[in-house]
Amino acid sequence: MDMQSQALHSPSLLSARDAREAIEAGLLTSEELVEGCLDRIEELEQSIGAWAHLDKQLALDHARQADKFRSRGLPTGLLHGIPVGIKDIIDTSDYPTENGTVLHQGRRPTQDATLVSLLREAGAIILGKTATTELAVYSPGKTRNPNNTEHTPGGSSSGSAAAVAAAMVPLAVGTQTNGSLIRPASYCGVYGFKPSFTRISRYGVLKQSSHLDTVGVFARDLDDLALIADVLMRYDAQDIDMTPTAPPCITKVMAEPVPANPRFAFVRTPRWDAVEQSSKDGFRELIDAVNQAAKDTVSIIDLPTQFDEIYRHHQNIMEADLAQSFADEYQNGKSKLSSELIEMIERGTKVSATEYDSSVSKKIQYSNILSEIFEEYDAILTPSSGGPAPSGLASTGSPEFNTIWTYCGNPAINIPLLQDPTGLPVGVQIVAENGDDGRLFRSSRWLLELLSD
Amino acid sequence: MDMQSQALHSPSLLSARDAREAIEAGLLTSEELVEGCLDRIEELEQSIGAWAHLDKQLALDHARQADKFRSRGLPTGLLHGIPVGIKDIIDTSDYPTENGTVLHQGRRPTQDATLVSLLREAGAIILGKTATTELAVYSPGKTRNPNNTEHTPGGSSSGSAAAVAAAMVPLAVGTQTNGSLIRPASYCGVYGFKPSFTRISRYGVLKQSSHLDTVGVFARDLDDLALIADVLMRYDAQDIDMTPTAPPCITKVMAEPVPANPRFAFVRTPRWDAVEQSSKDGFRELIDAVNQAAKDTVSIIDLPTQFDEIYRHHQNIMEADLAQSFADEYQNGKSKLSSELIEMIERGTKVSATEYDSSVSKKIQYSNILSEIFEEYDAILTPSSGGPAPSGLASTGSPEFNTIWTYCGNPAINIPLLQDPTGLPVGVQIVAENGDDGRLFRSSRWLLELLSD
Repeated sequence: MDMQSQALHSPSLLSARDAREAIEAGLLTSEELVEGCLDRIEELEQSIGAWAHLDKQLALDHARQADKFRSRGLPTGLLHGIPVGIKDIIDTSDYPTENGTVLHQGRRPTQDATLVSLLREAGAIILGKTATTELAVYSPGKTRNPNNTEHTPGGSSSGSAAAVAAAMVPLAVGTQTNGSLIRPASYCGVYGFKPSFTRISRYGVLKQSSHLDTVGVFARDLDDLALIADVLMRYDAQDIDMTPTAPPCITKVMAEPVPANPRFAFVRTPRWDAVEQSSKDGFRELIDAVNQAAKDTVSIIDLPTQFDEIYRHHQNIMEADLAQSFADEYQNGKSKLSSELIEMIERGTKVSATEYDSSVSKKIQYSNILSEIFEEYDAILTPSSGGPAPSGLASTGSPEFNTIWTYCGNPAINIPLLQDPTGLPVGVQIVAENGDDGRLFRSSRWLLELLSD
Repeated sequence: MDMQSQALHSPSLLSARDAREAIEAGLLTSEELVEGCLDRIEELEQSIGAWAHLDKQLALDHARQADKFRSRGLPTGLLHGIPVGIKDIIDTSDYPTENGTVLHQGRRPTQDATLVSLLREAGAIILGKTATTELAVYSPGKTRNPNNTEHTPGGSSSGSAAAVAAAMVPLAVGTQTNGSLIRPASYCGVYGFKPSFTRISRYGVLKQSSHLDTVGVFARDLDDLALIADVLMRYDAQDIDMTPTAPPCITKVMAEPVPANPRFAFVRTPRWDAVEQSSKDGFRELIDAVNQAAKDTVSIIDLPTQFDEIYRHHQNIMEADLAQSFADEYQNGKSKLSSELIEMIERGTKVSATEYDSSVSKKIQYSNILSEIFEEYDAILTPSSGGPAPSGLASTGSPEFNTIWTYCGNPAINIPLLQDPTGLPVGVQIVAENGDDGRLFRSSRWLLELLSD
């Protein structure tokens, strides 16, 4: 079906870029697009449970306003009229933000998170808030995997990943403190991008750990992922860990020709034994296919053994920070917290200041080792998850294939390249040097083009 | 002299765009540019007094950091390495912000105003803070007019206008609550731009009146004015009067060909009698020259008589708001306020709520009348000031030719087109429909090109 017919028949299937183009060309209104997304949600939400809060009338009102604004002929933003889903730990002035816990039921922020205000400036329609796990940690929410509803969608950005995968919305925002973005992207079979640390503002976002929390995005193709990243990757003095840096202009950098064919290091990580055999086979075939298409593109390398310690450092920081960030919830609402989270918080209170400081300060050493790898290779290829989404909804799966890159703060993309024998998606993670988000996208584009030739 | 030689010999004379280009081409470093500006300041500051706070080492440090960053090959912002002057009522985390009054002496904000953080994100070097009048109202600071130091530079953005005019810095930021930006631009002979109301964030800017306060910019040409406007015109949820609107992309819109030759309405305003005869003659010659170059381009029109009342409405709002905004200073530091400001504050306390509300609510009626004019004309031409900068430093001159456009919130540019018989600059103000900032620049460019043919 060509874009014109699709725009008219099932606009929710359009990419954000195609929808934007159709709106600019007068083939589609934002109202029709939002209606299409709401119809899709109506049809599928009961089986998927991607949304924590929806307000159809509000979304349609905003869409009609966007259409009216466009008719005045003034400049429109990069996402004019395009619906976006927002993880329900990100403050919005016109929806509740309940952080996945009954303890915050009815919480209504008065102010938008900075990232939400950037989306509104770009003309995006906030379609609703997406379901998440308890306080964005492990305890699952209601969301199911659109590829097979008996399987977990992953977490904690469960609803954002599932909503994009089910074509309820072309774009969504999530966060990652360990594996909360790249893992659900892998399980749900969508593109996910976790930028370099502190390149999207966390002002107005539930704080787990200021050393680890990273905002990221979901889309169904790489161009859309770049588009929303360009809207959100802006300096914000309100996030005190950010430093002023020029916008990375990802769409522009991604479109540039590569100066030379990129080289990739396939990194198995210390957890390779936990990867399912069929996924191991899939990665092997992928490496062979790439090297067949362009000789010596991928080399398999191993990280130095000290990387085995990263999981412990990450755990020290995350659990100690959880204990601090959720001290109120623990003290005043412990009975309403999951036992899993209580255990993490209690372990966190036992982390000594020395251990904590040592775990924080080691980041620079690990990053330096990775920088050496990135002197030789444009990017690292590595599993996004230990395989496809596990069966069952009691767990959101393991973040262990994301820990290194979250701890070190490197930008990472999930590319939904593989499938397990039952057809479930398995993601490939591509990781670049810290601060080199544009090159990460360019290398990803090059790889996708190579494989599609 | 071509740009290459100028870049090497007197970089402070370069436009921001030329400097940026020279830096990108490796002909100039930001450090050299900042050094050039500091040399120029060293040479002229004693006679002009444009600066409230300078920290040469800090500015040079930032410039060296910018040079180092560029050498890494990552994307750089629109103002990478370019020095900018900031009116000393705008908060900066690394300079004092003393608001032109001894009452705020030693005040050191911990956080940047949003507009300063946007400049830093774009790579600009904050060169220092520019002198202003007492609390940005009328009582003059130390600044003198660079064209003739026996004359006022205008106010309250005195230092910003004078610093740009004296080529101490290519760009500066100011504000206008009545005539504080367009008037000093006219008196000093530089380009000034006051955007549509609430299109540059006022978060972190001294508040006089939330109904009137408008941030704007100074430059020595129209392209530079558009460049810094594009950096600053971003939605900021922290300024609660802003609404999410797409960036106006002024540089892009300005470069577009005009769909048809623009038409201009020359508006004398109810204060025409206060315009000096030589300036009246200058405007007459300008209108003739334009109409000779392109027939029927300018028509002289008069505003309906009810516009006579705007000055009173503006005064009601401004003085009542001053009384509220400076209540602390009045109560605790009255002896250190000028008698002029005390009078304004005391008049402000006597404005009744009914008068105030009526003066606020009438804005929409006036704006509707102006909108009718803008249906027929692309822009209004009108004096920026009643003539050249008055002689003497005891007053900053009258804002009466700016009141209508500030009250109604229309975007306005000062173009330094005229001169009085002694060679002092006299500005032409060009005003457009509210929200049509891009078209204002495009019409201005068209007019300048017509006159230079």
